[in-house]
Amino acid sequence: MHGLDGAPEWPTLQAMLPGLAGKRVLDLGCGFGWFCRWAAGQGAAEVLGVDVSENMLARARAETTRATVHYKRADLERFAPPQPAFDLAYSSLAFHYLTDLAGLLARVSAGLLPGGQLVCSVEHPLMTSPRHQGWTQDESGVPTWPVNGYLDEGPRVTDWLAKGVVKQHRSIATYLELLRRAGLVLTDLREWGPSVEQVAANPEWSNERQRPAFLLLAARKS
Amino acid sequence: MHGLDGAPEWPTLQAMLPGLAGKRVLDLGCGFGWFCRWAAGQGAAEVLGVDVSENMLARARAETTRATVHYKRADLERFAPPQPAFDLAYSSLAFHYLTDLAGLLARVSAGLLPGGQLVCSVEHPLMTSPRHQGWTQDESGVPTWPVNGYLDEGPRVTDWLAKGVVKQHRSIATYLELLRRAGLVLTDLREWGPSVEQVAANPEWSNERQRPAFLLLAARKS
Repeated sequence: MHGLDGAPEWPTLQAMLPGLAGKRVLDLGCGFGWFCRWAAGQGAAEVLGVDVSENMLARARAETTRATVHYKRADLERFAPPQPAFDLAYSSLAFHYLTDLAGLLARVSAGLLPGGQLVCSVEHPLMTSPRHQGWTQDESGVPTWPVNGYLDEGPRVTDWLAKGVVKQHRSIATYLELLRRAGLVLTDLREWGPSVEQVAANPEWSNERQRPAFLLLAARKS
Repeated sequence: MHGLDGAPEWPTLQAMLPGLAGKRVLDLGCGFGWFCRWAAGQGAAEVLGVDVSENMLARARAETTRATVHYKRADLERFAPPQPAFDLAYSSLAFHYLTDLAGLLARVSAGLLPGGQLVCSVEHPLMTSPRHQGWTQDESGVPTWPVNGYLDEGPRVTDWLAKGVVKQHRSIATYLELLRRAGLVLTDLREWGPSVEQVAANPEWSNERQRPAFLLLAARKS
C-alpha cells in the first residue's frame, strides 16, 4: 500500500469531499503530492500544493506530469493563498503541527470563494492529549488508551518518525471554535477508527476501535 | 451548594442560553424543577418541565409557585411536545440515558418554532465510553483516565447513584449527526472541565482538568 490508499482514513475523508471537476484546489501540507495528483485526475482545473519540505516537493514535482498541478514551498504558519480564488482547501494531518492555526484558517478562509469548502484531517485530540502516549490494559485486559491533559492545550513532544516532534494539542471544542472564528461553518465531523469490517480484514488494527485516531472536519465559507 | 449552583458546569451552560423573556421553554428531564423555576424567573412566558420520575415531579410542584411553570410526567423515549410552539428546548444530563435519542430529537425539533434553539448537556463521551470507569496514573504519576470502547457505541452499566444504571455511549460525531438529522444546526459545542481558577478555588477538582466531564451543545432549528 502506498499513496492515498496507504492511509486507512482516506476513503472516509474522500467521501467528505465535493466533486472536483473544474474546481480550484489548495492542498495545505501536500507532502509528496498524492492528493494533488488525485485531485487533478478528478478534473480539478487547478491544484496548488503547499509544503514546507523542499525534499518532499522535489519528489512531488518529479512524480507530477499534469500541467494543472503546481507546488509552492511555504511554511503554513505564514502562508496565505495567492488570491481569493479557491473552491476547496484540503489538508491531511498537518494542522496539529501548527502553533497559529487560527491565523492560517483566517488566511485560508479569505482565499476561498463564497461557498468554498475546507476538508481536513488532524490527529484526534485523544491522540495528542496524553503526556505519555501508549496502550495499557484495563482490569479486564481490554486494550486501553490513557488520557490526561485534555483541557490543557498546547505543545506535546513525541518521538514518532523523528525524535522530539512537537504537536499542538487542541480539544474538539477548540477546533470547532477556530473554524467559526474564521467564518467557516461546520458541515461534517467524523471521529475515525477502522470499521468492524476493516478490523476483520486487518486484525492488527483491532486496538484502533478503542479510541479514534483521526478527527475529520468539513466546513463551508459562510 | 444546591440547585443549579450545585452543578459546576451551570455557568457555562447558562452562557449558551438565549434571553428567555417572553419565551416558551421546554425542560427535558427537569428533575426537581430547578431550571424551570430559574427560567420563569428570567421572564419566560411559559415553562414546561418533563420528567419520568413522579417523586421528582412531586417535589418540583411543591417548590414551584409561579403559574407560568407546568410539569408533565412522561418518558422521554416517547414524549412529544404538545404543539410546535417552543422557543427553547433545554436538557441537562438526560440524553445519555435514552436509547432512541434520534426519535426524541426529531420530535423536539418538530416542537420548536422556526429559529428555536436546543441547549443541552450530556456526559462527555470520554466518560461514557470505558467499560470500567475510574482514575489511574501514567508512568509519571499524573492522574489518567483510561479510555476504551469509544467507537463501539451502545449501553454501559455503571453503579453511580444506584447500582446497574444503564447509560448510552455515543461519540461526539454521533451526537452531531443526530442533531443534523433532526434539522438542528450546531451553533456551539463546549467540552466542560473546571477552569484553572475553579480548580484553585476547589483543589479537589484538579483531576477534572485531565479529561472533560460534560459535553455542552447548542443548536438552532434550520
